[in-house]
Amino acid sequence: MDHPVISFTTDFGPESAPAVCRGVMLSIAPDAQIIDISHGVRKFAIRDGAYLVWSAVRWLPVGTHVVVIDPGVGTARRPIAIRAARGDVLVGPDNGVLMPAVASLGGAVEARMLENRELMLPETSATFHGRDIFAPIAAHLATGTAFESVGRAIDPATLVQLVFPAPVATADGGLETEVIYVDSFGNARLAATPEDVERLLGPLAPGRLVRLSLAGPDMEPRTEEIPWAATFGERPFGAALLYRDSAGSLAIADNQGDAAARLGLRSGGRIRIHSARS
Amino acid sequence: MDHPVISFTTDFGPESAPAVCRGVMLSIAPDAQIIDISHGVRKFAIRDGAYLVWSAVRWLPVGTHVVVIDPGVGTARRPIAIRAARGDVLVGPDNGVLMPAVASLGGAVEARMLENRELMLPETSATFHGRDIFAPIAAHLATGTAFESVGRAIDPATLVQLVFPAPVATADGGLETEVIYVDSFGNARLAATPEDVERLLGPLAPGRLVRLSLAGPDMEPRTEEIPWAATFGERPFGAALLYRDSAGSLAIADNQGDAAARLGLRSGGRIRIHSARS
Amino acid sequence: MDHPVISFTTDFGPESAPAVCRGVMLSIAPDAQIIDISHGVRKFAIRDGAYLVWSAVRWLPVGTHVVVIDPGVGTARRPIAIRAARGDVLVGPDNGVLMPAVASLGGAVEARMLENRELMLPETSATFHGRDIFAPIAAHLATGTAFESVGRAIDPATLVQLVFPAPVATADGGLETEVIYVDSFGNARLAATPEDVERLLGPLAPGRLVRLSLAGPDMEPRTEEIPWAATFGERPFGAALLYRDSAGSLAIADNQGDAAARLGLRSGGRIRIHSARS
Repeated sequence: MDHPVISFTTDFGPESAPAVCRGVMLSIAPDAQIIDISHGVRKFAIRDGAYLVWSAVRWLPVGTHVVVIDPGVGTARRPIAIRAARGDVLVGPDNGVLMPAVASLGGAVEARMLENRELMLPETSATFHGRDIFAPIAAHLATGTAFESVGRAIDPATLVQLVFPAPVATADGGLETEVIYVDSFGNARLAATPEDVERLLGPLAPGRLVRLSLAGPDMEPRTEEIPWAATFGERPFGAALLYRDSAGSLAIADNQGDAAARLGLRSGGRIRIHSARS
Repeated sequence: MDHPVISFTTDFGPESAPAVCRGVMLSIAPDAQIIDISHGVRKFAIRDGAYLVWSAVRWLPVGTHVVVIDPGVGTARRPIAIRAARGDVLVGPDNGVLMPAVASLGGAVEARMLENRELMLPETSATFHGRDIFAPIAAHLATGTAFESVGRAIDPATLVQLVFPAPVATADGGLETEVIYVDSFGNARLAATPEDVERLLGPLAPGRLVRLSLAGPDMEPRTEEIPWAATFGERPFGAALLYRDSAGSLAIADNQGDAAARLGLRSGGRIRIHSARS
Repeated sequence: MDHPVISFTTDFGPESAPAVCRGVMLSIAPDAQIIDISHGVRKFAIRDGAYLVWSAVRWLPVGTHVVVIDPGVGTARRPIAIRAARGDVLVGPDNGVLMPAVASLGGAVEARMLENRELMLPETSATFHGRDIFAPIAAHLATGTAFESVGRAIDPATLVQLVFPAPVATADGGLETEVIYVDSFGNARLAATPEDVERLLGPLAPGRLVRLSLAGPDMEPRTEEIPWAATFGERPFGAALLYRDSAGSLAIADNQGDAAARLGLRSGGRIRIHSARS
C-alpha cells in the first residue's frame, strides 16, 4: 500500500472545493495517488455522475472511490461506504450515484453507514460533507483503516438503487433503448450493447445499415439510417455511425462531428433500432 | 518532508502554462504533491483569486502556496514570499492576491522579496514569472531551502493590502455587506458571517425569514424575503435560502438552482439584510 | 527513476477518459508523476495539440510524453513512439501531433511502431487507443522497459510531418507570418520570432511602432499600428502590444484585454509586419 489510489468525482466545478477535499485527503494519506475522474459533472446530476464513475472504475487500480454528487447534503440521506467484490471501496451519499460502479466491480459485498466521528473532520458542516465526511473517511480507508470501523453495517438491499434501463424488444421486431450520456464529443452513449442488437436483428457487420427512430422526452421525433462501423475513420468526414464505444456499449457518433447536436440527442431520450428496409 | 505539499492557483486557463510550471516545480522537488486549487480564475481578477485561495488553504496541509494572478507581470510590482504564522509560505506577486490567505493562516510573520537569481530559472522572461520565478522559488522552499535565502526582508506593513469589506450596520437596524464571490453553482458568497447578522438581528433559527435588498453596482435593485436554513435540502426544489457556507460565511442559494442568475447577483454587489416584516 | 515523469495531452474533454488512461498508467507505473498538459485541446485539432505540447515539453523534466489527438483512431495511421535527442520518449499517433515537440527536444533519434501486444491492455478496442495502447506502452517505457521492445524500427523520414510555417520576406520589405495559436487570454501566438522581424526591419526597441496587416483565411482584412513592448504592463489598460511570448515567439496582445476577439485573429490567419510609416 505504498501509493494507495483514490479516485475522486464531483459536480464541484472549477473552484477550490476539489482542492480542499484533496488537501484533506493528503493530510491523512500523504502518499495517495488521487485520480480526478471529473469535477465537471453536471450540477446535481446523479445519473451523469453515476455514468462517469461506472465508465472509469474498472480501468483503475483497486482503490477507494469517492463520489460527491449530493443534492441532499445535510438531509436524511445516508452517507455510506460500500465494499465491492473486486476489493474496491466506494464512498459517497446513498442516492444511487455509486451503484452502477459497484455493479461493474462485481457487486456489493458489504455496506456501512459513515458514523465514526473520529474518522471525520473535527467539525462537520451541513453543506460540505465532501470535505468533512467523505474525503477524510476515504483517506483513512485508503491507508488501511478497517472497513468495519466507519459505522454500523447496513443491508445492501436497502441502498438507493440506480440502474441504467435495460433495452426492450419492440412489437415490430426492433429494440428500444435509451441515451444514458452525451459526451463532450457529442457522441450519444446508449444503454444497450451491440450484443443486445445482434440478438434481435442479427450480426452487425461493418457497413450494415440500421434505422434509428428517435423520440422524446426533450427530443424531436426523427428517423435516420446509419451504418455500423468499427471506428470513426471508416466513415466519411461528418458522416454518422453506430459503434461499440470504449465502455462496450452502443453509441451514435458523427466522424469528427457532433451527432448529439445535429440530431438533438439528449440523455434520457429513447432510441428505437430496426433493420433498415432494404 | 517526504512529500512536501505545494498548492497552485492561477488564471492561466486550459492551456499548457500550469503544466509548464508544474514541470519546473517537479524538476526541483520531484516528490512534491502539487494541489491545483484552480487555474480557471477569471483573467486578471485579483480579488477572485484571493477569495479562492483564502477559501482553501486552511484545509490544506501546511505547505507552500503559489498564486499567479499577475496583471502587472514584468512591471515594478514586487515578487514576494510571505511566511505565515501556521508555518506555510505563500509565493506570488505583491498585488494583494496572497493577503486574505495569509490572514487565514494566522497572519504574516515575515515577508521577503524574490531576488536570488540562483533560485530562479537561468533565463527570466518579462511575461511569465510563474514559470521563471514563482514556481522554481516555491519548489526550492518546499524542499527545505531557507526562507531567508530568497531575498531581502521587507516590512509586511508595506505589502499591498486586500481585505474583503467588513459588513456595516445601517441606520434602520439592518446590515450591509457585499457579494465577494459567485461560485459555479450560482451561490453568492457574502463578506458577512451569520454571527454578524445575529449581532444586529438576533438569532438565525431555521425558517426565520430575512429581507434582502440588493443594489448595484451592476445589480438591479430588488428585494427578496428568504429563510435561513442549515442546508439546501431543507428548502423545496428551486427555493431560495440564506445559509452558512462551507467557509463559515453567509451565502445565498437556490436549492438545486442558480440564485445568482435568477437574482442578478454579482461580485461587488451590495446586499442589505433586515428582519422580515412580520 | 524514483518518480518517472509522464506528460499527458488529449482532446478528451471534461469526462472520464483522461482518468481512465491515468488509471491504466498508474497500474503499471505506480510511482509516476503524471503531468496533464491539457485535456481541453480543441477536438481533432492536431495542430493545436502539437502547439501546446511543443510549448510545454522543453520546460518539463526528461520523461515520457503521451499525446492523443487522434481523429484517425482505429484506421491505418500508425501508433508510434519516438525517442528524442534530449532523452525523452514521445508516444501517440503518427499524424504529426508529436513532431514540433520532438524538434524542440533536439529531434528524433529513433522511431518505432507500437506493435508489442504484451505491452498493451489485453483487449484493444477500435476507438480508444489512448487507454488500450498509448497509455500502457508509455507507462511501461516510463518504468524502464527498453525502447526497442515496443515494435519494429521505422525510418523517421517516413513520419507524418507537421511544421509551423516559416515566416517569409515580402516584396515590399516586410515579413509575413501566421497565427499558430490563440490562447485563452486572447493573445495570438505567431510563427515568427522577434529575431525574424529584426533581421528585416531592424531592432525592436520598446515603444517602436510596427504596422500589422491582417488577412484571411477567416479573418477580416485590417491594419493596425502597435508598439513593441517587453510586457503587458508597459501599455495602458486595454492597449495593444507586440511582444516576445513565453515560448520565445512573437505574439499580439491587448493589456488585460482580448486582442484576438477585438481584431478577429484566428489560428491560420496571415499577418504581415512592416515598419510603421513615420
